[in-house]
Amino acid sequence: MATLHTQIVELGERSYPVVVGSGLLAGNFNLADYVSGTDCMIVSNETVAPLYLQALTSNLSGKSVKTVILPDGEAHKTIDSAMLVIDALVAAGANRDTTLIALGGGVVGDITGFAAATYMRGVSLIQVATTLLAQVDSSVGGKTGVNHPGGKNLIGAFHQPKLVLIDTETLNTLPDRELRAGLAEAVKHGAIAASDYFLWMEQNVEALLAKDGDALAQVIIRSCQIKAAVVAEDEREHGARALLNFGHTFAHAIENSLGYGEWLHGEAVAAGMVMAAELSELDEAQQQRLIALLEALGLPVRPPPVGAARLRKAMNLDKKIMAKRLRFILLESIGSAYIADDVPDALLSRVLAYGEP
Amino acid sequence: MATLHTQIVELGERSYPVVVGSGLLAGNFNLADYVSGTDCMIVSNETVAPLYLQALTSNLSGKSVKTVILPDGEAHKTIDSAMLVIDALVAAGANRDTTLIALGGGVVGDITGFAAATYMRGVSLIQVATTLLAQVDSSVGGKTGVNHPGGKNLIGAFHQPKLVLIDTETLNTLPDRELRAGLAEAVKHGAIAASDYFLWMEQNVEALLAKDGDALAQVIIRSCQIKAAVVAEDEREHGARALLNFGHTFAHAIENSLGYGEWLHGEAVAAGMVMAAELSELDEAQQQRLIALLEALGLPVRPPPVGAARLRKAMNLDKKIMAKRLRFILLESIGSAYIADDVPDALLSRVLAYGEP
Repeated sequence: MATLHTQIVELGERSYPVVVGSGLLAGNFNLADYVSGTDCMIVSNETVAPLYLQALTSNLSGKSVKTVILPDGEAHKTIDSAMLVIDALVAAGANRDTTLIALGGGVVGDITGFAAATYMRGVSLIQVATTLLAQVDSSVGGKTGVNHPGGKNLIGAFHQPKLVLIDTETLNTLPDRELRAGLAEAVKHGAIAASDYFLWMEQNVEALLAKDGDALAQVIIRSCQIKAAVVAEDEREHGARALLNFGHTFAHAIENSLGYGEWLHGEAVAAGMVMAAELSELDEAQQQRLIALLEALGLPVRPPPVGAARLRKAMNLDKKIMAKRLRFILLESIGSAYIADDVPDALLSRVLAYGEP
Repeated sequence: MATLHTQIVELGERSYPVVVGSGLLAGNFNLADYVSGTDCMIVSNETVAPLYLQALTSNLSGKSVKTVILPDGEAHKTIDSAMLVIDALVAAGANRDTTLIALGGGVVGDITGFAAATYMRGVSLIQVATTLLAQVDSSVGGKTGVNHPGGKNLIGAFHQPKLVLIDTETLNTLPDRELRAGLAEAVKHGAIAASDYFLWMEQNVEALLAKDGDALAQVIIRSCQIKAAVVAEDEREHGARALLNFGHTFAHAIENSLGYGEWLHGEAVAAGMVMAAELSELDEAQQQRLIALLEALGLPVRPPPVGAARLRKAMNLDKKIMAKRLRFILLESIGSAYIADDVPDALLSRVLAYGEP
């Protein structure tokens, strides 16, 4: 029997466990125990379903299980996809005791979470995260939503899952590019909140890229600890939770400029963190550590050459929407972040110029 | 200065006032005090906007005010209408500090509330209720949502407003048919929770139909008291709040069978309450009192002749979705309701037969 690691996200009566282990889908975990009613619906995508749908279903014996398969990719994180899930729930006559189970990465998790938040004003949700990005970040914390042509995640809800299940064996089938994109969010956790974790990643790049099971489990457990602590402190992002958006203002501008799905979210976050670090006027050595770690992990450290004007336009919408004033998460040093809304425009222009062709 | 009546909906840090009075839109109330940021967006419809949009806007001096006008009617209570509101928010660059203001009846309130619940995972909401149905029922309690072709309100969220504003003068422009539809929900409140209120309505039918200001204000205040108490006790309808659904299983079947908007919601509720009373095997005298009051108010007491089979089909979807077992709100007596899930099918068939042509 493999070791299970459980991290509780402490949110009073909405607390829930994040369970991390190997071989959970193969039978080391009885998911049916977490489905309170008799009915559940698994939402997955064309890529993940052929790999894990059968295994997941066999962990749900005794339950009535329906399935919805969505197309793969960020380009499909739309209100229409969420409505496909709702249509399937209606067609199945799903009631308030239904549990929705997201089987996949961040996109599947966000869409399924939003459907669970809004179907009949809220039904139960379980996240079974199969990409590293979802395992270290997006499956924990209850942010659900879909993109709008005008910006990422503009339509959504806070809806905490009852359980997050992370089977590290799913990483064996994860494309390297997606693994690296997930590591970007782990780097983010170290950069904003834990210099020792950042250092540990610097020392374990090879093991991580080689998909060493122990190293990846460490990353997942440590990132989930950090995420759980931040979410427990500030569930609805009135304050400290915003620090988790380090690199994300630039990342959203990159994704919006290129078209959703062109770069993976984690890739955009990597380049965005370097831009935010530059904006932080971090000391040179620390900035170089961030760049070096991301490069070692095979991640981009510069935005794509879409032009500074285009990045600024995308960012202005984000800016206008997110806050009246330009608001960034900056680094004091590696391991310590803060919110700044007084970034000089000349400095910002210099950073956006990285996007010049 | 007109008298203001304030009823607090007690929900801890989400508590809010329901303010009832005459001439509030004409300047007896400073709505701007309840808009925390600088920006707000009023959502109304083609019928209400020409009547009250200008007055409402002039109560918002010092604020930046945008407007969205939706088509009128239950047929437009769709996810597409909610997305029109979201599109307008994005186009306006609305941020998290935006306040959405619903100006209209139940449909506008439900759509606007859902947009407020989901835009950027939740922004502030104010309900300015201009129909009696919204004033006595739908604007209070935080239920928001839109219809799905498969059933009413299947897509939604609980999202409490910061304020419910009820200017009783808006009833002067309300069509008689809509006034009567609103009274149906008031009858419901008396029937399930307050026999004295029911009796008072029996004694004040003429004043109510003549739109006597004091009588209508009494109805609004009393209904809001009852609604506020039920919501405070059970915000998310795990228990007692379900009693407010008296007549609604049949009403939804009627609305779904006829097509949304054919009958007004309150009309369907009136016929539905008579059907539920029949199902309750209430004593004959009390049943006659319910029928007589609804008839005196000019409301239907029988379903439209769509056929029992069609009603049952619509109800089966509702039933399947709402609970595994057929679940009805029944009357013990006028003023006292309970939840029953053991209604004999033969009895149900007899009641559905009222829908035979």
